[in-house]
Amino acid sequence: MKTELRRRVVSFEVRTRSRGLYDLTDEVQSRVSASGQDEGLCTIFIRHTSASLVVQENADPTVQSDLNAFLSRLVPDGDAIFQHTDEGPDDMPAHVRAALTATSIGIPFSDGRLMLGRWQAIYLFEHRRAPHTRQIVLHIGD
Amino acid sequence: MKTELRRRVVSFEVRTRSRGLYDLTDEVQSRVSASGQDEGLCTIFIRHTSASLVVQENADPTVQSDLNAFLSRLVPDGDAIFQHTDEGPDDMPAHVRAALTATSIGIPFSDGRLMLGRWQAIYLFEHRRAPHTRQIVLHIGD
Amino acid sequence: MKTELRRRVVSFEVRTRSRGLYDLTDEVQSRVSASGQDEGLCTIFIRHTSASLVVQENADPTVQSDLNAFLSRLVPDGDAIFQHTDEGPDDMPAHVRAALTATSIGIPFSDGRLMLGRWQAIYLFEHRRAPHTRQIVLHIGD
Repeated sequence: MKTELRRRVVSFEVRTRSRGLYDLTDEVQSRVSASGQDEGLCTIFIRHTSASLVVQENADPTVQSDLNAFLSRLVPDGDAIFQHTDEGPDDMPAHVRAALTATSIGIPFSDGRLMLGRWQAIYLFEHRRAPHTRQIVLHIGD
Repeated sequence: MKTELRRRVVSFEVRTRSRGLYDLTDEVQSRVSASGQDEGLCTIFIRHTSASLVVQENADPTVQSDLNAFLSRLVPDGDAIFQHTDEGPDDMPAHVRAALTATSIGIPFSDGRLMLGRWQAIYLFEHRRAPHTRQIVLHIGD
Repeated sequence: MKTELRRRVVSFEVRTRSRGLYDLTDEVQSRVSASGQDEGLCTIFIRHTSASLVVQENADPTVQSDLNAFLSRLVPDGDAIFQHTDEGPDDMPAHVRAALTATSIGIPFSDGRLMLGRWQAIYLFEHRRAPHTRQIVLHIGD
């Protein structure tokens, strides 16, 4: 029996409404706090290829909308270069946007707190236009 | 003597034929399985700056070719903006493509299995047009 | 009292002069060496959203200037698409450039040495045009 062992790997889900950023910081911090560990590394992993992760500014919401707008122009929906169109005009752009951002991010913590900078938050970046349920996995190591 | 200690760092090589994606998932999973660990974090690192790593969809191969085609248009070979041309017209674009994707990816595992999503695979992304031998390093931690 | 415990999380600052790459390799390696650990994973995290991390070629400095030039063209300062302009025409481009590169990188080490490839160095990528003091956090795990 290993039921008494602290679990290092925990998962949770996030429901998205449409393309854009969703703040995960409180959820991740609460899992780090619940681990009871003082110091270590929290690795965030997203189990999808049309949504991704990004650490961005948490102060002015136009940073988030500008980042989204820039990527929507850089990787246009319905671009004729794409063959993979069966799942809609925003699907292959979503894969490209995920490849250009991050699937995993490692953040050290100390005194039980993620060592984010003052202006940093952790975001799930939904790249599809329709709502989705997204799965996040955390590894909380020492 | 520490010869009895399990090694946490293991390396392997991948031979590429040309620009494109090469599936590393089975190779990485086999090293995680061989570690005998139940739960932990596997970090994949590529020891190159003209090839990189990406987690992408494993179902429809046009996702891979579309991603490659998009990047080849975004970062054109022989672009006049580049000064670093001694190693060929595809060399500096390869460095840019590597910077825009990932040099390391951390994936939690549980019950001895990488916690990849159903549609996710781990790819080496070769950015040069000629064949290369690429070195991958894994860290398998608890 | 936990004063005898080896600290796994260490921080340092880097002063930047302007947009461009700053080599962190020696600084990171010295912290790994000081840890006294033989084998493990070093995770580098930057506490900012307008500067980022990248592993790139350490041989020809034009690789660094070309990468910077390419990104300055891809994400133009003063682009009319951006609403977030209060902090200057290079601020929102800095956020985008940070999102397209890396906030954290994990590098395995063995025999006390980071397992970087022969041509790899770890760089802080300053995306703002003015000098800044940037904070880097390392997690050095086994």
